[in-house]
Amino acid sequence: MFNAKLASSTDLQQTTIVKLSSNVTIGDEEIIIIAGPCTVESYEQMETVAQKLKTSAIQAIRGGAYKPRTSPYAFQGLGVEGLEILDTIRQRYKMPVVTEVMGTEDIHIVANHADMLQVGSRNMQNFNLLKALGQVNKPILLKRGLAATLEEFVFAAEYILSHGNPNVVLCERGIRSFDTYTRNVLDLGAVVALKQITHLPVIVDPSHAAGKWELIPNLAKAAIACGADGLIIECHPSPEKSVSDARQALTLEAMVNLAESLAPVANAVGRKIAKTLALV
Amino acid sequence: MFNAKLASSTDLQQTTIVKLSSNVTIGDEEIIIIAGPCTVESYEQMETVAQKLKTSAIQAIRGGAYKPRTSPYAFQGLGVEGLEILDTIRQRYKMPVVTEVMGTEDIHIVANHADMLQVGSRNMQNFNLLKALGQVNKPILLKRGLAATLEEFVFAAEYILSHGNPNVVLCERGIRSFDTYTRNVLDLGAVVALKQITHLPVIVDPSHAAGKWELIPNLAKAAIACGADGLIIECHPSPEKSVSDARQALTLEAMVNLAESLAPVANAVGRKIAKTLALV
Amino acid sequence: MFNAKLASSTDLQQTTIVKLSSNVTIGDEEIIIIAGPCTVESYEQMETVAQKLKTSAIQAIRGGAYKPRTSPYAFQGLGVEGLEILDTIRQRYKMPVVTEVMGTEDIHIVANHADMLQVGSRNMQNFNLLKALGQVNKPILLKRGLAATLEEFVFAAEYILSHGNPNVVLCERGIRSFDTYTRNVLDLGAVVALKQITHLPVIVDPSHAAGKWELIPNLAKAAIACGADGLIIECHPSPEKSVSDARQALTLEAMVNLAESLAPVANAVGRKIAKTLALV
Amino acid sequence: MFNAKLASSTDLQQTTIVKLSSNVTIGDEEIIIIAGPCTVESYEQMETVAQKLKTSAIQAIRGGAYKPRTSPYAFQGLGVEGLEILDTIRQRYKMPVVTEVMGTEDIHIVANHADMLQVGSRNMQNFNLLKALGQVNKPILLKRGLAATLEEFVFAAEYILSHGNPNVVLCERGIRSFDTYTRNVLDLGAVVALKQITHLPVIVDPSHAAGKWELIPNLAKAAIACGADGLIIECHPSPEKSVSDARQALTLEAMVNLAESLAPVANAVGRKIAKTLALV
Repeated sequence: MFNAKLASSTDLQQTTIVKLSSNVTIGDEEIIIIAGPCTVESYEQMETVAQKLKTSAIQAIRGGAYKPRTSPYAFQGLGVEGLEILDTIRQRYKMPVVTEVMGTEDIHIVANHADMLQVGSRNMQNFNLLKALGQVNKPILLKRGLAATLEEFVFAAEYILSHGNPNVVLCERGIRSFDTYTRNVLDLGAVVALKQITHLPVIVDPSHAAGKWELIPNLAKAAIACGADGLIIECHPSPEKSVSDARQALTLEAMVNLAESLAPVANAVGRKIAKTLALV
Repeated sequence: MFNAKLASSTDLQQTTIVKLSSNVTIGDEEIIIIAGPCTVESYEQMETVAQKLKTSAIQAIRGGAYKPRTSPYAFQGLGVEGLEILDTIRQRYKMPVVTEVMGTEDIHIVANHADMLQVGSRNMQNFNLLKALGQVNKPILLKRGLAATLEEFVFAAEYILSHGNPNVVLCERGIRSFDTYTRNVLDLGAVVALKQITHLPVIVDPSHAAGKWELIPNLAKAAIACGADGLIIECHPSPEKSVSDARQALTLEAMVNLAESLAPVANAVGRKIAKTLALV
Repeated sequence: MFNAKLASSTDLQQTTIVKLSSNVTIGDEEIIIIAGPCTVESYEQMETVAQKLKTSAIQAIRGGAYKPRTSPYAFQGLGVEGLEILDTIRQRYKMPVVTEVMGTEDIHIVANHADMLQVGSRNMQNFNLLKALGQVNKPILLKRGLAATLEEFVFAAEYILSHGNPNVVLCERGIRSFDTYTRNVLDLGAVVALKQITHLPVIVDPSHAAGKWELIPNLAKAAIACGADGLIIECHPSPEKSVSDARQALTLEAMVNLAESLAPVANAVGRKIAKTLALV
Repeated sequence: MFNAKLASSTDLQQTTIVKLSSNVTIGDEEIIIIAGPCTVESYEQMETVAQKLKTSAIQAIRGGAYKPRTSPYAFQGLGVEGLEILDTIRQRYKMPVVTEVMGTEDIHIVANHADMLQVGSRNMQNFNLLKALGQVNKPILLKRGLAATLEEFVFAAEYILSHGNPNVVLCERGIRSFDTYTRNVLDLGAVVALKQITHLPVIVDPSHAAGKWELIPNLAKAAIACGADGLIIECHPSPEKSVSDARQALTLEAMVNLAESLAPVANAVGRKIAKTLALV
């Protein structure tokens, strides 16, 4: 498909399984659920998050240290301090962390503090970044651009693959449309298509697609039902106090409930969710 | 929401149940599956369809007698002859039929031959048609326009409701986007939102959204998982011979299999599919 | 192009000239400017408009009697009373009038009171209406649908042409996009393309595209510069009191100034604007 | 507007004039025309281009040394060799050159070989790049992202301005839409709006918008008519042999003719084009 020779599926049975840590993988029978706040705000915040999520089927934590913000005057993230918080959390709670890298100059430090490096939607065709990530020894979470065609998305993955890194996870997170009720339009047809035309794992971010917390649980179920390998969802100890994306953050309680509610849907399509991890 | 006083939900417990026939309803616990060809081509075709679908959980038949076609030189449908075929089929097979009405001048005859009148995407804001359908004593299937906002969609329903017909079923069928891999983008966020902001049943047409038959089964599962009240899907005895939409039609076999595969997903979200109806 | 045999241009020299009245045409060297309020509100309003516009190069008047409104509770237009006002105005001021027809049932009466019948964006693919307008002996102003491809737009014209009416004028009026600063995106590339692939006159409605009056004069100049055959623009004696589209209406003074400012642009591309008509 | 304090216009009389070289500026009465091939292919190619363009009102040359390509297997540009060709050309022909910079690591070398650094559409929200370009002592040509709102576009400029570089030129180059006849939709409403809400120069790239050479001349006229400060257009000695964007490249002859044809339109809106520069 699209002559993307490394990303293309030649055999629907062949699928790539990406390893986040010794016991957390993406792309096999078990659905991955990655959750956490939009932005790393403090150690206390992340600890509250990890303690709660650890009691559920959620296996990995997200949180932004470098934040791509529309305005230069908006909070740009804690940077290195945020990475260090994430690093402490992942070690203490034995949960892999995913965080965004915004430029080649930050790859080294981000790779040293996180288990998976996220390329944000705005950078999906930052080809210099993609090439450099092809030489990194960590898995990459590649988010679809806001107006990226499937061809462009698959070729963005191909940039990473062809530069040497086979561990790419695709993430559908909503595309731009004319309607303003939802923030973006979650394109689950793309998920079904990507699972057919590539062998890469595909996860779904319903938070940025919906932009409203009350739409997220049902979209999460839909994502699993259509064959997604997992979810990445925003939650926060006090959504109304979140420094960013407050309108779309679930409470931790709602996040844990959502994770539980996915089990029957996963089972209905031959998948399962993780066993709850033991409390630390 | 949107000041659409009749369509708006004031109480999430209150939902409208639309009756298609004495034993077929839309909007209650049981998921409705409506299936059939894009276009009514002959009596034999429709009989083959009905005989096969009757053996499954599919409860209603679709088929176009009046066809909205981009080109005036494309086949415009069998018209009254098509309606008569549908009428015979629904009586013989005891399956309600859904068919499109394209103008006020055809409302009377279509209402006399079908159980539910469909307003196509291109006519979603044909306000003269909507007003006239408000005075009809048959349920209306209102398809979302290709670039309709949720506000416009809900207000289109409000036109029908406010002119006297309370039996409106909304149908998400994909919206226009920049990508060409799928025909349109299925907007399941809209389904989740519509179920929250209105009390009307909402069904999903994955066929016109996907435009490719191989994407349809997984999108159908996603639709049910996110809370849709049913599906309307195109199938054909010989898809490659279909006079229209051949690329997106399922075989009858695949259609029946799809219907069966929906049961566990429906159960996972507290719904069910119909018991298979007895063979005629 | 697109197999639209009647609409397609086979010879760039051949162009259709549509006659609105004995001395007003669309498609020849002279640019047409059609102006007036969104909605016909009263005889006094229309008379004020006509008196002012008559002093300028503006040759025709627009005004809606039947109004397509998103909400059924919004003002739906004066209907027949509005048509009668338009009829009186056109006779008294010798200016042809353009007004929208929303359904087949209204064609006869609209055709009896107006010089050109407008098909609105929402009805661009109301094929029953298009077919019926193919049998009318008045020119048709066909507005592009909000998400219509050029192929669909040209074929919509072809519906009218192939049913017997050769007098179709195309109107680009903005398409839906993700941005909210302008109401729609004026697609002048479509105007350039339509002038190449069809022989029909093409005019531009910058009012509905921009949605903000302050953007309209410069977009009007752009439209003429790229080859449009004319403009249709909303203006009102007191924009802030307009029952609809107040934000995009020019004052009559601004409208007349705009018309004058177009002369040098028209000249720069080998066109001209009309001589100012004598005062009544 | 949008709280972009440095980019926002507080006074329509105040406008920024960006200096490309000792005698070439953007944003004053004279329209700038920048032309050249999509990709720098060889010294001979660029010399042929410069010799021809030098005979016209075209004042600056474009050409890509680092090429953002959808596929990693497509030609990625000559890199440093391409920059050196551009550098020789600009010195020999006394024409400033504009070329793209794709990452922070290339800023230094690109700034040393070119007169204006272009940020491509895909990098419009590559915030690390924008911040770094804020510290460069060369003007920046910032192209609008394929699905960027005006707010996002203005804030992207604000990133550069707020990091210290006041010399930013905005470029509208078409946005993504559903139609496939043109490559993108040229949004001249955005140009009119940007001239009102910012004090920055705004130029237009009709080549990437149209995607078809035959649409470009008329769109170029429209751009000037609506108030753009200039144009950037693709041309090639042998368009059919171009390594990229062949379908949209003008011949050099057509390019020179286009430049000449803009004079009357520029005059019609109170602007002018450059006097033809002396032959070398």
